[in-house]
Amino acid sequence: MLDCGEGTQLQLVRYGLRTHRINFILITHLHGDHFFGLPGLITSMALFGRKDKLTIAGPAPLKGILDQIINIGDAHLPFDIVYIVCDPEKPQIILKGNHYEIESVPLKHRIPCTGFILRETGPELKLNIDVCEKLGVPIAWYERLKAGEDYRTEDKKLIPNHDLTLAGTKNRSYAYITDTIYDENVASYVSGVTLLYHESTFLHQMLARALETFHTTALQAGKIAAISGVESLLIGHFSARYHDANELLLEAQSVFENTLLAEEGKTYVL
Amino acid sequence: MLDCGEGTQLQLVRYGLRTHRINFILITHLHGDHFFGLPGLITSMALFGRKDKLTIAGPAPLKGILDQIINIGDAHLPFDIVYIVCDPEKPQIILKGNHYEIESVPLKHRIPCTGFILRETGPELKLNIDVCEKLGVPIAWYERLKAGEDYRTEDKKLIPNHDLTLAGTKNRSYAYITDTIYDENVASYVSGVTLLYHESTFLHQMLARALETFHTTALQAGKIAAISGVESLLIGHFSARYHDANELLLEAQSVFENTLLAEEGKTYVL
Repeated sequence: MLDCGEGTQLQLVRYGLRTHRINFILITHLHGDHFFGLPGLITSMALFGRKDKLTIAGPAPLKGILDQIINIGDAHLPFDIVYIVCDPEKPQIILKGNHYEIESVPLKHRIPCTGFILRETGPELKLNIDVCEKLGVPIAWYERLKAGEDYRTEDKKLIPNHDLTLAGTKNRSYAYITDTIYDENVASYVSGVTLLYHESTFLHQMLARALETFHTTALQAGKIAAISGVESLLIGHFSARYHDANELLLEAQSVFENTLLAEEGKTYVL
Repeated sequence: MLDCGEGTQLQLVRYGLRTHRINFILITHLHGDHFFGLPGLITSMALFGRKDKLTIAGPAPLKGILDQIINIGDAHLPFDIVYIVCDPEKPQIILKGNHYEIESVPLKHRIPCTGFILRETGPELKLNIDVCEKLGVPIAWYERLKAGEDYRTEDKKLIPNHDLTLAGTKNRSYAYITDTIYDENVASYVSGVTLLYHESTFLHQMLARALETFHTTALQAGKIAAISGVESLLIGHFSARYHDANELLLEAQSVFENTLLAEEGKTYVL
């Protein structure tokens, strides 16, 4: 889960998502719309009898605030929380799994803030099983082939990897960049991701307000997408002043065509 | 506003209530369903440009938690918050206005907790203006007559109050009692109030669970209402296990007939 504003539990119920399936919660910064739903979500997880470890990544003060709220309510959590402190100054791999990794990247907002990049890191090749079996490649070699190695037979003959494998699924990546002022460093962090979510709080005619409040305009979000060579851009975090988000969409699309509008409850498939 | 669980802002919007009309927030205790909506409500009030003082009464640690959350988010509130610490050990008048007062009363829950009693304290008599004018009672006397004094004319003649006044509006009172184990002290605190809201988390067949979690059964809530001689009882705070709250209503009514069910969004006129 990326950020957890007030009322997140209600949204989970509305969209049929189960809290026990959430194992990682990544909090960008400590403004209310990004974490005020967290105490309620955690205490509800306790009420539902959760046993599985929960990992929470976020700014340094988050653990203290949550501990205090949980202790004052005399809540005894039946599960462990593992906290990861995100560095607001430099990019950092904060989690590494078998076939994925999560990186936090520094953003420039009014208070310490980091974005997150989620990357699949599994093998992108799949075995050409017919050829492997015909040549008698031992099963012990299969993972090495999927990782890109060439195969050397017992009689030292080299069989190149591309004879034994086929193109598999390309690893996907998702960057979640909110809240931030326009910052071209972001373009280098998110370079080449499959889908970039970037905040677009204002239209570019409100640039002065964007600079003052450390937010980005739709035009600037499009520019970051264009510079960084991402496949698609998803814009959101719109100021409540905009009743028709299509204005923001058109502005971003004027710089980066493959832009989508983040709509409540909608699923975006990478 | 009595308590402020997560999502209170959404409910205010749903029922067309305006946050700027809220001047007092009374928090019974620091379990999430009673205060997790408060940080969001306060920061939204700031966003909406509130200038008026806000008074918050609640347990001692509340100020520290809210200060910390507001400071970490670097929010600068454009209004003052006045905190009142409620004594979890003994009843205490915490606010006195021109024609009302608010009392906090100690409850017995798993953590420090107080209920609140809101009482009108205005004059219950209105002037019999025809008689007053006929007898030439000076206008300066009017407030004293409404407060129940007899009138003495310039020539020392005593005119009894009941000749100069009529029955006016009876002062109303509302007691908000949640969360608590069954406690007959509560009956003495709320004695004679117009409307008693009392938590009724369980049916009486779940008495053991009620004792264990420091909650009250519907039967017990009815009993408190009967002992204390209130006019009406409003029960709420039902366990999610009850899909039909009428079971709880019938149980409370078996002891105290004039019982109502607290329903979301419904207005109860005293």
